[in-house]
This record gives sequence, structure tokens and C-alpha cells, in this order.
Amino acid sequence: MNYGIIKRTLGWLLLFETCFFCVPVITALVYREKEVFDFLFTMLITATLGGLFLIGKPKKDRLFAKEGIVITALSWILMSLFGAIPLYTSGGYPTYVDALFEIVSGFTTTGASVLPSDSVAALPKCILMWRSFTHWIGGMGVLVFIMVFLPLCGGGRNMNIMKAESPGPSVGKLLPKMRSTAGVLYLIYTAMTLLQFVLLVFDMPVFDAINTSFATAGTGGFAIKADGFAGYSSYSQIVVTVFMVLFSINFASYFFILRGKFKEALNTEVRVFLGVVVSAITLITVDLCISNVLQVGDAIKHSAFSVSSVISTTGFATENFDTWPAFSKTILVLCMFIGACAGSTGGGIKVSRFVILFKGVRHETQRMLHPKRIKKITMDGKVVEHEVVRGVNNYLIAFVAIFVVSLLLISLDGKDLVTNFTAITATINNIGPGLGAVGPAGHFGDFSILSKIVFIFDMLIGRLEIFPMLLLFMPATWRK
Amino acid sequence: MNYGIIKRTLGWLLLFETCFFCVPVITALVYREKEVFDFLFTMLITATLGGLFLIGKPKKDRLFAKEGIVITALSWILMSLFGAIPLYTSGGYPTYVDALFEIVSGFTTTGASVLPSDSVAALPKCILMWRSFTHWIGGMGVLVFIMVFLPLCGGGRNMNIMKAESPGPSVGKLLPKMRSTAGVLYLIYTAMTLLQFVLLVFDMPVFDAINTSFATAGTGGFAIKADGFAGYSSYSQIVVTVFMVLFSINFASYFFILRGKFKEALNTEVRVFLGVVVSAITLITVDLCISNVLQVGDAIKHSAFSVSSVISTTGFATENFDTWPAFSKTILVLCMFIGACAGSTGGGIKVSRFVILFKGVRHETQRMLHPKRIKKITMDGKVVEHEVVRGVNNYLIAFVAIFVVSLLLISLDGKDLVTNFTAITATINNIGPGLGAVGPAGHFGDFSILSKIVFIFDMLIGRLEIFPMLLLFMPATWRK
Repeated sequence: MNYGIIKRTLGWLLLFETCFFCVPVITALVYREKEVFDFLFTMLITATLGGLFLIGKPKKDRLFAKEGIVITALSWILMSLFGAIPLYTSGGYPTYVDALFEIVSGFTTTGASVLPSDSVAALPKCILMWRSFTHWIGGMGVLVFIMVFLPLCGGGRNMNIMKAESPGPSVGKLLPKMRSTAGVLYLIYTAMTLLQFVLLVFDMPVFDAINTSFATAGTGGFAIKADGFAGYSSYSQIVVTVFMVLFSINFASYFFILRGKFKEALNTEVRVFLGVVVSAITLITVDLCISNVLQVGDAIKHSAFSVSSVISTTGFATENFDTWPAFSKTILVLCMFIGACAGSTGGGIKVSRFVILFKGVRHETQRMLHPKRIKKITMDGKVVEHEVVRGVNNYLIAFVAIFVVSLLLISLDGKDLVTNFTAITATINNIGPGLGAVGPAGHFGDFSILSKIVFIFDMLIGRLEIFPMLLLFMPATWRK
Repeated sequence: MNYGIIKRTLGWLLLFETCFFCVPVITALVYREKEVFDFLFTMLITATLGGLFLIGKPKKDRLFAKEGIVITALSWILMSLFGAIPLYTSGGYPTYVDALFEIVSGFTTTGASVLPSDSVAALPKCILMWRSFTHWIGGMGVLVFIMVFLPLCGGGRNMNIMKAESPGPSVGKLLPKMRSTAGVLYLIYTAMTLLQFVLLVFDMPVFDAINTSFATAGTGGFAIKADGFAGYSSYSQIVVTVFMVLFSINFASYFFILRGKFKEALNTEVRVFLGVVVSAITLITVDLCISNVLQVGDAIKHSAFSVSSVISTTGFATENFDTWPAFSKTILVLCMFIGACAGSTGGGIKVSRFVILFKGVRHETQRMLHPKRIKKITMDGKVVEHEVVRGVNNYLIAFVAIFVVSLLLISLDGKDLVTNFTAITATINNIGPGLGAVGPAGHFGDFSILSKIVFIFDMLIGRLEIFPMLLLFMPATWRK
């Protein structure tokens, strides 16, 4: 294990986090809030510690897969531990674990809160801004962000970090250099965030538009109002619906569109994703109309908003879908697991994984009928390598295993099964709201400390796609 | 596709089913019940049809994997379609679909009923006996049973049928010939059933002892009393607890014990299974005591009975565990998925599959740390072939997919999410009771016809381990 390079990267991370804190500091100055000192105090710590970490040069410059994985996992943990400090010291959260839950929920773009929505609305504006900004940073990945500005390691081995931090079964290079790829992706990300801001600012205060844009871009979902997104105009709700879907699509697709390669842009995953979104909206709309819950127009609007919110794993709410009929709720829960496209800011298991899983099963049935025929699994005309299929299979199995253990641990709190099941669903898939006590009208504050730690772990597991967090706690990783 | 051999096997199947009907006919004669005519009428149909099917010799004697799979799936469907007739004509069930649900629940050793338990208790004794006897036949597999008595096909190709009908990821030969293996296994099965009968008959009426022994041996779980198993003595409850566990263990283990090979008998799967059983009982006992639901003695007895009942996928109940605390309920639901050992009569996903899945994930993490090291997955000192691992992975994925589609379809009935989720869990894993409306005190009668058809399909899917039923409905199977 190359400890030198790990220490160095974590040092840079802390320095970058110091810069990130400038966003809430500026907000605090604009609104003249005393919580500015909480942020300045934390900045002092992160800057000092970051500087100390950067003293001395690592002996070796080599970065293997192992180090890439460890760096990613440690970065996210460290970033969250310090990011939670101002939340705690400002007094808005009862315990440090609550503050940590909230900021992990921010960075992992989950958007679940330990506070009831009216307490959230009463938070200082700088705290609200920091929460939303963590969504924006966490959406694309902080290490990918740092990579844009400085070479984390020599010899083009940034790939190992990008692989560990980016969502989806396989990471492709758009440009020959990994750094340029990261740069292009962040450029698209920033441009789209800006576009959404411009479209929203006509219809809501600047502060609301910034927060909403950050939270949508990262598919995070922290609300800043007591009624979530219900109070905004239909225009704003529609803009957000569209952008939640846009931010769930592989950013490489936008790169291809800019280059005029429309066929590459509309690949299998994007087509399946859009198909699922349209089907889910249609089925729920029909169910809501038949069950007389809403009129046709409202049913379309709210089902479109809820489906986009849940499948993009954003978690905004205009309606309390916990009160919808069983069929609609079941579809929403399924969408929570499906999630967004790989290479987007969305969470969940990812559409491409499902496509590969489905193709794997079809392959298996063909092998049963014709044991001697040899055929490979393909997607978009390319062979899906055996290693990728195996990786996706193991991903699903590890996912189920962690889900089950988490469910068991939080069931000690004695809450009902639907609340428990969807609380894990909502955190491990980085969505935010679930059903029952953690539905759009509820919050995560009533769980025990143990359960909150389980949720924190699950949110990180979900955002980093399981293995970095798992490997961090395996003795084999640290063995020579 | 060799249609000749398929027709011939189905012909034999119907003749054997005609013989099976003798058990309820004798019961009806003993208790002088008029329902004897319902059975005789059905016997006339199955005997005639079976005879017609046997006219003409198949041109070719060859049986490929494909035919083995199709024969198995069709046999189970046909056997159920005819087995349901006397239930329907006797007037005990409102519709033919209800009767079919009940008999599929019998053959697949599920034990779920469409009737409330007091209506079940009021059924004629010959109908009750037929229900319990289907458990016994279905437990080990009807085709394996037929195989003991006559060669279904030449050239030792019975393996393909045994593979399709027997539970678990891989079927081993105990003796050089498949027919002798089947014979030995049925001998062990019969001996154990008799032993249980002898132990029970001291403590309950002969009729009850026969029914209970059939239902335990097949890990079925049809109750014949309105209060399920709660009314029997502690002695009987303990005997059944022990036998539910015994019938969940790979029968090959007993074969090894008879030969003095104790190390082979206590293989990884059996050890893990027993470990899970003991842990689950302990955790639930502690939870029940802490929550003041039961006193220590009763807590141990009822948690042992419930865990054994659920993990063996039998489904007997002494206590309504739907009223237990969330932690205990969650453990029971998890046990429902784990299920029994491969090569037993129990259902569920099977312990050996979980062992292989776990080893696969551990393997994956090691590969991430050391991408270039090549190591194979082993179990009990033998290499687990790549094909087996892939098969188990695809099994789990297909399982999840069918689970999800089923859940969506039955959610149209508008029942609560816990009822829906555990109803699918209880049928696809061949358990019987779930939680909520389908808990130990409930039944499956209130679901729509569509939902009941979904359950019928899921029970067959579960018993035949997914792929035979799936392949039956795939056009590729029937293509030249």
C-alpha cells in the first residue's frame, strides 16, 4: 500500500473542501448570518490539516487499483466528517451523528433529512446553501473534480480513481486523457446547471433557484421549504421534472450530441431508461385516475414529477405518494431500485446493470436449450466482456446482502416493515424519501443512533457502488 | 423436440396419478364419505387419458436436456390440473382456480390455502388426506418417484429429468445408476416418514399422525385443524420441530451417515444451515423475551417451531408470528428466502446457493485487490465450476425478476405492501404463510383470480427452480 500518495491525495481533498466552504460563507455574508463563524472555524481546521498532509513528497508515484479504491473511500468519509462540523456547531442538529447523517445524505446526493421539513425551512440560509452545494459536488464526484484541476498522480493512472468514484459498471474514456474527459464532463454538468438556474430564476427567488439547481443537478433532493416542492408553480415543477430526467442520463450522451453523433447518444441504456420512465408515468397516471385520487391533468403532472424524482434518485416531492394506491407505490419502489443511467449523477442500481443482468439470464436459458452452442452477450454492437457480467452479478449479490443486514439492524428500532424496507431502499439507492414514517411527509430523525450509522454507511455504499466501502473494512486490503 | 417421448412420459404420469388417488379413496371408504365418487370419477379420466397417451411407441429413444426440462414442467402442470378436479367437484372450493391453487400448493409443498382455517378443518377427511398426500409426492418429486419403478427412457438419460425436478444447484449421483440413486433416496424418505408417524401416533389420532407426517416429510405445511398446530401437545410440537429440520437436510447426508461417512454427511451446506437455524432461534428467543411477548420456555419452543417451519419452508404454525416484534418478523422473512439445503424436500433459494453467492462476492473483492491473481472458488475441497457459479447468479437474478413482476401484478388488488411482499415470498419459496392478511391466521382466498394465477405460477416456479417453467413459455424452446 502506497501510504504516501494516499496521504497526499487526502491533503488536497481537505484543501479543496476548504474552498468549497466559501460558498456558504458568501451566503452567510450576504444574509448577515452569524453561522459564518462555524464555517470559518471548520475552514481553519481543514486548511491546517490539509497543509500538514501535503508536507513531504511520496516516495513512489505508482497508484494501483487497490490504492485508488482506498483513496476514494477514505476521501468520502473524511470529507463528510469535516463537512458535518458547521452543521453541528451551528446548533441546528441535536447530535454530531445527526449532522453527519445530513451531510453524508448531501454528498451522496441522497437528500434524506433527520429534521422534519418545517425545521429544515427554519435553518439559516448558509446552512441550506451548504447542504445543496454538497449535492452538486457529490453528484459528479469530488475526486473527479479535483482531477480536473491538478494531476493526482503521474503516468495517467487517474483511471483507477475515476473508476472507483463514477457510477455504473464500466467507465469509458471520451478523450484520450482521463483528465480531459473529467474536464469535459464537468463542463457539461456546469452548463446544464446554469441553464436550469436561468429557467428557474424567472419564477422563484434567486436563493431558491440556486439551491434547486444544485439539488437537481446532483440528483440530490434536499428541499428548502416546509412543503417541499409543492408550493412552486407548475412551470417550475415541469422544469425540474425535465431536468431530473436530463441529469439521469449518461453525460457521455451529451458529449456525443455536441459532436453530432446521435446514434451513440441514444444507446441501449438511454432508450431503456426513457422507456421505463414513460411506462411508469403512464401506469401511475392511469392508476391515480381510476382510483379517483387525482384528476387527469394533475395525475399526469404529479406522476411525472414523482417518477422522475424517484428514478433519478433525486427525491423531491410535490405530492405525498405514500398515500397513493398500492399499485402506484409498488411501481415507485421498483423505480427506486432501477435508478438512473451509468455515468449520470443519479443513483440506484443503474439501468445498464439491469440490461446486462437481463441479457445474462436470457443467455443462460439459451445455454440450457443448446448446451453446446457458444454465444457472447452483446450490447450496442459490442461484446460485453465476461468480467463485466460477473462484476454486475456480484454487485447485485453484494447489494442484496448489505440490504438484508441493514434491514435486520434497523428493525431493532421496532418500526413497521414498510418503513424499514423503504428506509434502506431510499438510503442505499441515494433517493431520500421512502414510504411510511420516512415518506415524503416524514423524516429520519426518529431512528436510533445505531440505525443512523447504518444509514450513513448505506448512503456511502450506494454512492461509491459498494466495493470501495467494503474493501476498506476488509483486512486483506491492508495486508502486505 | 422428441414429442413421442414427452407423450409417453405424460401417459405414465397420469397412470401413476390414478394410483395416487387410491390413498384418498381408501380414506373415503374408511370414513364412509360420499366424496369417494369425486375421486373415482377423476381416476376414470386420468386412467383413460393416460392409456391413450401410451398407445404407440416413440420413434426415437433419445432425451436431451431440452426434453427433460419440458417433460418436468408439463408433468407438474398436468398433475395439478387433474389433481384439482376432485377438490372442485366435491364442492369444497368456490371456483376451479381455487381448487387448482390448493392442489398446486399441495404438490409444490407450499401449504398455503385459499380457505380460512376453520373451513379447512370442516373439509371431508378424504380431501384432507389427498391434500397432505400431494405434499408427500411433491416433496421428493413425482418423476423421480416414477423413475424408481420404471425406466422413463433408455441409455441412462434419466439424469436430465432428475436435474430438472430436484432442488439445488447441482445434482450428484450417489450410486452409479440414476435409478438406484432415486430408489435409495425414496427409501430414506419413506423410512423417515414412517419413523415420524410412529413417534406421533402415541400422542394424536392415527389420521392426524398420517397427515402431519406427510405434510412434514414434504415440508408442505397443510394444517388439518382450525388452530393449526397450536392445539397439539408440546411433545408433538417438538417432534415436528425436529423432523422439519431433518427433512430440510440433503438426503444424501443420511446416505453418507448410513455408510459411516460422517465427514461427508456434515458438509459445508449442512453446517451453515444448522448454524443459521440455531442463530435465528436464539435471536428471536431473546427478542421475544425482551419485548415481553412470551416467557423464556415458551419463547424457545415457539421460536424453534417457527424458525424450523419457515426455513424448512413447511409453514406449520403454533403461534401467530405476525404479531411478533419487527426484529423477529424480519428474521423470519429472511429465513423464508434462505430456505433448506439442496437435495432435501424443502424450498427457498437454498443454503448452498447462498454459500456459492457469498464465495463469489469474496472472490470478486480479491480480484479487485489483486487483478492478476487467478484463484478458483472451492467448496468442501472441490472446485466449484465456473458454470455452476454463473448458473447460481442467473438463478438469483431470474428469481428477483419474477418476484418483482409478480409483486406488481398482485398489487393491482390494492392490498397493503407487507401482505403483497410476503404473499409472493411465501408462494415462490413454497412456504405457505406470510405476514399481514396472509399471516398464519390468514389465507389466500381474498385475492383476485389474476393474483391466484400469479401465485400458482410462482409456486410451480419455486418448486421447479425457475428455469423449467420459464423455458416452457419461451418460443425458442419449441423452435426446430
